[in-house]
Amino acid sequence: MSSVTSREWRFRSRPVGEPKPSDFELATVESAEPGDGQVQVRNLWMTVDPYMRGRMNEVKSYAPGFELGQAMTGGAVGEVIASRDPGYKPGDLVSSMAGWREAFTAAPAAVGMNKLPAANLPPQAFLGVAGMPGLTAYVGLLKIGEPKPGETVFVSGAAGAVGSIVCQIAKIKGCRVVASAGGKDKVAWLKGIGVDEVIDYKAIEPGPQALSKALRAAAPNGVDVYFDNVGGDHLTAAIDCSNPFARMPICGMISIYNATRPQPGPYNMALIVGRQLKIQGFLVFSHYDMQPAFLKDMGAWISAGKIKYEETVMNGIEKAPDAFLALFSGGNTGKMLVKLS
Amino acid sequence: MSSVTSREWRFRSRPVGEPKPSDFELATVESAEPGDGQVQVRNLWMTVDPYMRGRMNEVKSYAPGFELGQAMTGGAVGEVIASRDPGYKPGDLVSSMAGWREAFTAAPAAVGMNKLPAANLPPQAFLGVAGMPGLTAYVGLLKIGEPKPGETVFVSGAAGAVGSIVCQIAKIKGCRVVASAGGKDKVAWLKGIGVDEVIDYKAIEPGPQALSKALRAAAPNGVDVYFDNVGGDHLTAAIDCSNPFARMPICGMISIYNATRPQPGPYNMALIVGRQLKIQGFLVFSHYDMQPAFLKDMGAWISAGKIKYEETVMNGIEKAPDAFLALFSGGNTGKMLVKLS
Repeated sequence: MSSVTSREWRFRSRPVGEPKPSDFELATVESAEPGDGQVQVRNLWMTVDPYMRGRMNEVKSYAPGFELGQAMTGGAVGEVIASRDPGYKPGDLVSSMAGWREAFTAAPAAVGMNKLPAANLPPQAFLGVAGMPGLTAYVGLLKIGEPKPGETVFVSGAAGAVGSIVCQIAKIKGCRVVASAGGKDKVAWLKGIGVDEVIDYKAIEPGPQALSKALRAAAPNGVDVYFDNVGGDHLTAAIDCSNPFARMPICGMISIYNATRPQPGPYNMALIVGRQLKIQGFLVFSHYDMQPAFLKDMGAWISAGKIKYEETVMNGIEKAPDAFLALFSGGNTGKMLVKLS
Repeated sequence: MSSVTSREWRFRSRPVGEPKPSDFELATVESAEPGDGQVQVRNLWMTVDPYMRGRMNEVKSYAPGFELGQAMTGGAVGEVIASRDPGYKPGDLVSSMAGWREAFTAAPAAVGMNKLPAANLPPQAFLGVAGMPGLTAYVGLLKIGEPKPGETVFVSGAAGAVGSIVCQIAKIKGCRVVASAGGKDKVAWLKGIGVDEVIDYKAIEPGPQALSKALRAAAPNGVDVYFDNVGGDHLTAAIDCSNPFARMPICGMISIYNATRPQPGPYNMALIVGRQLKIQGFLVFSHYDMQPAFLKDMGAWISAGKIKYEETVMNGIEKAPDAFLALFSGGNTGKMLVKLS
């Protein structure tokens, strides 16, 4: 056992609008030898996710905010290198919320540490398809969306970590899947994983009208479930094309996370009444009761080749802010990850 | 048995924006003697309701549209004056969808005819507290709103036929009730029926900010259930002041029914995710399975003095369009009715 040098990202300034690299500061610290009940971990992978944008604001959000001057946090998987907690031994692979750093020493409960489940998956899968984004897709689609075989499911942000899993679970459930993503590569990838129709929203005129028109063409029978990752025009178009009793799990609204002024909501809200629509926001943190079922189903689906997943990887702790910022310009296909060692 | 002279309102022109008296035309017809299987009815009361505005539009709506040049339809209660259907006899009190006229002859199934349930209530109650508006309140609040004792329920359009019943059912269920209505008389009446706090929205500045401020003051613990009758700024304010997991049954959006251009939705839609809100439109027509429970509960509540109801009555078939138009300027407290004979 010995202290380990670690670099960590600290939160330097609150962004107004889009975050910029100078909002982050890289510091070098020593991760001390573990004290009684502590574990020392070298992180292998860390995740960046859209929800972290909300943690940069001063307003109360669902996840605790980042504190100015302090190390940032987020999901990570790593390997135990020293332990004075009888539950962990060197070599154990663990997940924790002590991301944005190369190594750390902490009591397991203080950082939400868990051993990775035994599974035939690489460790970083537990930051994506088998982790929080996968569970988010599973909960939102199945519990709130309640898709029935033969129904049409529309997914925005479909090439992302959550959206791409939503598309595939919907196919497994016997639905017709219409996806929206930006750019030819993403469109091609989504078609390759079995999505029936893909709208390249970057290839059509901006605004809800053109999107509604494209959606109507791609979903001639109307939309029964809309899984919303982006908000804004996509939500408006989904309401436009909705069938009676459509369900709309609202997972995120990345299109407006960086807005500096209030964004008008859908102009067609009145349809909510006549079509009896359900629009329901959710956070995966409220649905961890579904995790055992999720891990069982997801393990089986991956083994059977029914779920494929993509990763966009940046290398080295110094790239973490770049990886995060790229989320807002659509720089990732599948899960965006930072490989730390 | 003989033919009966009846006046009826016909739909003359599609309104753009607010309907005007010239959109309606009064005609005199003969209600023929009933043929085999038909019943002849003299209407005693007819109802006007906000949802009828949607029936004046050409766009497909949930209720069949009014047809230009044809007699309008809607809820009515009347007395059978002649019958060649063995299920009905002269003197029976019946409800039907053959409103907007003084008398009619029809096969019962063609006009949705039902005998009024035996109850210690005047017949017109079955157009209001014990009819469609009462069931609307019951379904929306209990099935979609799911209020729990101690929670705060916010109701807009609270002095209306539906809103005033929502307020009282919420009190019966042990909730704190905050209502919004326009004008001192309505405020006083709502306080008289047990509403905890009433916002007179006509007495504050227009716009969502002032309404949010007033709501925050009236609901310092936040809003758990918002029963929406009006849409627009009220929905925005309710989202602003919502607690996590708030439920919002959307019954109507009277504030925008007469809009001639698309109205922007709430600018604070992003809160739907972080607060895990559920916004769900509904139509009472989809929930008639709850009618038996509703009639049982409502009968007991009225008998026990727990539900009070108000009527705004205009006299004579010639007043029907005035009664309808007054709904959009807040001209009614409780149920708006037209007494026909």
